[in-house]
Amino acid sequence: MNFELSTRMGAVDSSAVAEILKSSVSPDVISLAGGNPDPALFPNDELADIAGEILRKMPIQSLQYGKTEGYPQLIEKIAERLSRVEGIDCSNDSIIITAGATQAIELTTKVLINEGDTVIAENPSFLGAFNAFRSYGANIIGIDMHDDGMDLDALEKAIQENENVKMLYVIPSFQNPMGTTMSLEKRKALYEIIRKYKLVTIEDNPYGDLTFDGERVPTLKSMDTEDLIVYCGSFSKIVAPGLRVGYALCNKELAENISAAKQLADVHSPLLPQIMVSDYMEKYDLDELIDKMRHTYAHKCRTMLDAINEYFPEGVTCTKPNGGLFIWCDLGHGIDTYALAKKASEHKVSFVPGNVFMVDSAKKTSTLRLNYSTMSDENIVEGIKRLGALIKSEI
Amino acid sequence: MNFELSTRMGAVDSSAVAEILKSSVSPDVISLAGGNPDPALFPNDELADIAGEILRKMPIQSLQYGKTEGYPQLIEKIAERLSRVEGIDCSNDSIIITAGATQAIELTTKVLINEGDTVIAENPSFLGAFNAFRSYGANIIGIDMHDDGMDLDALEKAIQENENVKMLYVIPSFQNPMGTTMSLEKRKALYEIIRKYKLVTIEDNPYGDLTFDGERVPTLKSMDTEDLIVYCGSFSKIVAPGLRVGYALCNKELAENISAAKQLADVHSPLLPQIMVSDYMEKYDLDELIDKMRHTYAHKCRTMLDAINEYFPEGVTCTKPNGGLFIWCDLGHGIDTYALAKKASEHKVSFVPGNVFMVDSAKKTSTLRLNYSTMSDENIVEGIKRLGALIKSEI
Repeated sequence: MNFELSTRMGAVDSSAVAEILKSSVSPDVISLAGGNPDPALFPNDELADIAGEILRKMPIQSLQYGKTEGYPQLIEKIAERLSRVEGIDCSNDSIIITAGATQAIELTTKVLINEGDTVIAENPSFLGAFNAFRSYGANIIGIDMHDDGMDLDALEKAIQENENVKMLYVIPSFQNPMGTTMSLEKRKALYEIIRKYKLVTIEDNPYGDLTFDGERVPTLKSMDTEDLIVYCGSFSKIVAPGLRVGYALCNKELAENISAAKQLADVHSPLLPQIMVSDYMEKYDLDELIDKMRHTYAHKCRTMLDAINEYFPEGVTCTKPNGGLFIWCDLGHGIDTYALAKKASEHKVSFVPGNVFMVDSAKKTSTLRLNYSTMSDENIVEGIKRLGALIKSEI
Repeated sequence: MNFELSTRMGAVDSSAVAEILKSSVSPDVISLAGGNPDPALFPNDELADIAGEILRKMPIQSLQYGKTEGYPQLIEKIAERLSRVEGIDCSNDSIIITAGATQAIELTTKVLINEGDTVIAENPSFLGAFNAFRSYGANIIGIDMHDDGMDLDALEKAIQENENVKMLYVIPSFQNPMGTTMSLEKRKALYEIIRKYKLVTIEDNPYGDLTFDGERVPTLKSMDTEDLIVYCGSFSKIVAPGLRVGYALCNKELAENISAAKQLADVHSPLLPQIMVSDYMEKYDLDELIDKMRHTYAHKCRTMLDAINEYFPEGVTCTKPNGGLFIWCDLGHGIDTYALAKKASEHKVSFVPGNVFMVDSAKKTSTLRLNYSTMSDENIVEGIKRLGALIKSEI
C-alpha cells in the first residue's frame, strides 16, 4: 500500500532533521551538533519532590482533563515574570501554554497562514519553524543576516515585492543557529517596519534568559503598541525540555483562535509538567537556577571560542555570542560544509552544516553551527581541535 | 488590529466546543454533559511514587529532549498489550506516542488530507475529530448510524458518489456520543469495503477497554491485512486524561510521516507522563485497574438506564451501551434539544444536545448525549429525574 500524502507535508524537509539527529550516533564521536541544554543543570530532585506532592495532594487538577489554554497559576506566574524581567505588560493579551515554543509557532501558523501565503524569516533560522511554515503550504522568503540582526532594507524590499506576505518570524536574542543578537536600534527600526505594514510577527525567544553578562535587549513585544507580536517563550532551556512547557503571548482575539487550534490538536498540554513548573517557580528561585545556567554556558562558550582561536585556520570567521547555545562559523575557502559533515564523522567529531538552517537547503554553503552546552571543557577543546585539523586538511 | 485568519480555521466549529464546556458552570447544576472519567479511579498515589522515582533516578531520560516517536519501553508495552488483549499483531507496524488519541487523529489528518478532500465519518461522532478534519480543509460526509454501527449501504454510496474520498473515521466500540458498538458481522463487511476501495481508515478506540461484561468485539486493526487502518488508542480513559498519553499504530511508512508532522508540532510528548504510564504498567496491574473502572461504569450506566426507565416519558428511545461513558437518547415529539439545553440549566441539569455531534450542527435534532461516569448514584438519579420532568413539560 502506497499512501497518497498531503501536498503540504511533501514540502517539509524532514531529511535535514534526520541529519541533525543522526550526527551523534557513535559514542567516540564528539558531537558539536546538538542543541540540548546541559542535563547537569536540571533541578531533578526538586522536581521529584514537587511531582510527588502534586499527584498526592491535587489528583484532580493534575490528572483530570484541564483547560486548553493551560494551568491558570502557571499563566499568572509567566505574566508576572515577563513583566518583571522583560518589561512586557501582559494585561491586555492572553497567554496559552503550549508544548514548547515549537507548538506555539505551529499553531500560530495554522491559524494565520493559507496555502500560498508568504512568511518572511531570518536566513539562517530555526529549521523547526521553517518546517512548520512549509507544513501549511507557506512560501518562505529568507532575509540575510548581519551581526546585529537581519538586513532591514532587504526585509522591506521583500515585503513590497512578494505577494500575500502574512507573517514575519524572528529570533532576536541569541539566535538559532547564529548566536547573534539584534541590536536595540535595529529592533526599534524593525518594529517601525512591522507597524508600517501591519505585519504579524512571531518573536521566538527561547534563549533570552541565557544572557551571559545579564544584559537583555528589550523584546519586540515590549514595544508592541499595535498588538502585532506573537511572543513565544519556553521553559525548555531554563528548566528542562523533556517537560515540553512553553507558551504564546498575544492579542486576546488571536489567542482564542490559537486555543481553538490547540483544542483539536491535543485538548491541552499535560497538567503535571505545567503544575511542576508553576510550583518550582513558587517554591524555588528560578532566577537563581537561570543564573547558574548563564554562568555555565558563558564559560563553555568562552572555552569553545578560545579553542577556535587556537585550532581553526585563518580565514574562518565565527560569531561571538553573548548568550544562548550556539556559535556560527563561516569556514570560507569554498568549503562545502554538507560534504565536510560526512567526513567529520571519520574524524570523530560532528557539527550541523549551515545549509540545514537555510531557506534554500540545497544550496552549498561554507557555514556551520557549533553547540557547546552539553559537553565537558575537555571535549569542547578536543572537538574543536579535531574539527580544526579537518578544516586545515580541506584548505 | 483585526487578524486575517486562515480559511481552514474558519471551518472549525469552536462554538459547539464552548457549548459543552460551559454546560456545567454552576455548582447546583447536575451535569450529564461531561465526558470525563471518574477521578476517584485515578491511581494517583501509585503515580506519585512512580513520578518521584523516575525524576530522581532517570533525570536525563525524563527531562532531556527525547525521541519524537515516544519512550521506547512504553511503545513496547503498548504493542505487547494490543497483541495480548486485542489480538493485534504490531510487528509490521509502528507505534507513535501522541497527546491522547486526539493528536493521533489530528496528525494523521495533516499528513493525508488536502484541502477539498472528503472524509467520511459516522454521524453523529466525536466533535474533536470533525474539527480536526475541518481544520485541514476537509469536506465531511456523515453516514447514518444504526444500533450495530454505520449504514454500510450508505457508506458505499458515499464512497462512490463523492470526489476525493481520502479517509474514513470510525469509533467501532462504545461510540462517542452514541455508546453503541459495531457488530462483528458489520466490522467484517466494513473491512471488505475498506479493502475494496483502499480507503485509509482511522479506527478510534479510546473506550474499548471499558467493556461492561468483558466482551471485546475484534478491532478492524486485527483484520487489517492491507495496512489500511490507523489505530488510535489512549490511556486517557484507563489511567488518567491529564497525562495526555495516547498513540497511533499504523503502517511504518505512514508512521514516519506522522512522526515528521509531530516533530514540527511539538518535538515529542513530555517524557515524564510517558514513563509514568510505562512504569505503572510494569509495577502494577493495569488490567486490574481497568476491571475496577469497567465495573464502576457498568453500575453507573445501569443506574442511569433504570432512572431513564422510571422518569422519562414514553416515546423517548435510548441506546443501551455495553461499555464506555455515554448514553444517546432521542426524545422524539419534535423537540429541539439545542433549545431544550438552554432551558435545562434553569431546571438545574445539563446535557449535550445532539446537533453538536452532527456533521450538520445547524440542523435541529431531538437527540442528546448523557454521561454517567463522574457522578454519584444519587446525582445520576436526581439529574435524570429533573431532565425527565423537563421533557414531559415540553411534550
